[in-house]
Amino acid sequence: MHFVSEQRLDDGVLERDFTLGEIPGTLWTPDSTAPLPLILMAHNNGMARKEPRLVARARYTAARGYAVASVDAAGCGDRPRTDAAEQARAELRRALRAGEPADEIFESLVGPLVEEAAPDWRATLDALLTVPGIGGPVGYSGWAALGIRLAATDPRVRAAGLFAGGYVPHAQREQAPKVTVPLLLLLQWDDEGNPRQRALDLFDAFGSEQKTLHANLGGHTGTPWFELEDGDRFFGRHLK
Amino acid sequence: MHFVSEQRLDDGVLERDFTLGEIPGTLWTPDSTAPLPLILMAHNNGMARKEPRLVARARYTAARGYAVASVDAAGCGDRPRTDAAEQARAELRRALRAGEPADEIFESLVGPLVEEAAPDWRATLDALLTVPGIGGPVGYSGWAALGIRLAATDPRVRAAGLFAGGYVPHAQREQAPKVTVPLLLLLQWDDEGNPRQRALDLFDAFGSEQKTLHANLGGHTGTPWFELEDGDRFFGRHLK
Repeated sequence: MHFVSEQRLDDGVLERDFTLGEIPGTLWTPDSTAPLPLILMAHNNGMARKEPRLVARARYTAARGYAVASVDAAGCGDRPRTDAAEQARAELRRALRAGEPADEIFESLVGPLVEEAAPDWRATLDALLTVPGIGGPVGYSGWAALGIRLAATDPRVRAAGLFAGGYVPHAQREQAPKVTVPLLLLLQWDDEGNPRQRALDLFDAFGSEQKTLHANLGGHTGTPWFELEDGDRFFGRHLK
Repeated sequence: MHFVSEQRLDDGVLERDFTLGEIPGTLWTPDSTAPLPLILMAHNNGMARKEPRLVARARYTAARGYAVASVDAAGCGDRPRTDAAEQARAELRRALRAGEPADEIFESLVGPLVEEAAPDWRATLDALLTVPGIGGPVGYSGWAALGIRLAATDPRVRAAGLFAGGYVPHAQREQAPKVTVPLLLLLQWDDEGNPRQRALDLFDAFGSEQKTLHANLGGHTGTPWFELEDGDRFFGRHLK
């Protein structure tokens, strides 16, 4: 893992870009000498780690005493596009515009994205836990499909805050019962294109003994600000 | 409103029993000289105001800077039983034991209970707002059916935290769209005898622009302790 840039932000958070082989990532840490718990933070369906909403969430969380890291999945963010994924994205946009059922296209796009992203995130986790000042335990926040995949297969992930507003491939829906860590699922009640019942079924399927659903009125991007605070308290209960 | 007893509890909260005509009630207030927001707190289906879980919730809330009040509904708690309600309760217990559908019995028990309780709570609210140190605004916490009835008809109620684990009569299900104040609905995912879908439909029906559902794994009495904190923060956002 090579740190390639760093800047101290006005909230006191240190933002460091890194590379790990072909994987570009960013680490946000507060000004602290204590070993920090670590939160892996990913956007739905592999959106870029530099997307302003993720950066704002990462900085907010880091400022509350966590190391927060995000990487770009293959074909996303700063990484080269693949023809297959670009074709699937174009086809998805066309289907959504035409109001056609998009499940199969989502499956063909997001399914492989999760499969390819998981080992990258696991390698990143291995590397991050060797960075001075990062002590764990490890939490996961954001993209539900990837979070299910990681939480179901990597015992280092000890708590997961997932956003229900994204396509969850068949493989991850089947993996949901294997997720047994404390879990907070965030649902936008009127999320365009993300059927509510599917999210409720997913919540029902998780194997966790401690699981909480927070649903708020509104569309995909309408999550109220106080959910950021609630997420911080959720991780505080399980990682601190 | 006559205060008939008072004691200072070990958490610093002053607990005062009162009577208002035939209505027995209790007021919990913190040691504070500032005008306090007021929370009306009721148990599902008219359970006694002295029930330990309600008292614990009231004291927790009062200690965080609220005046909290509860009264016994007609036929409940310290008030004389009515033959009709006692008969309905016995019939309800029998039906639940026998595994029979209990909706009609619930309707015949809880429907009139809400109708009779609402004017008592409104009279109590009138009186409480004249007590020195209580300034409002007013919130409501607990028994969903009564909360819907009050929030839909009394503009002084500015925020409502409702527990979904209780029978909501037809009249209140129809009133739900008239509830427009900020709302937090608390649902136990596996509440025995309280169908989950009915609670989700109720959440959907509320007219509030700001409404949040918190669902947690477990049965009727299994609400996790952190929901008490979340409730306090909900009221903090809207009453302070």
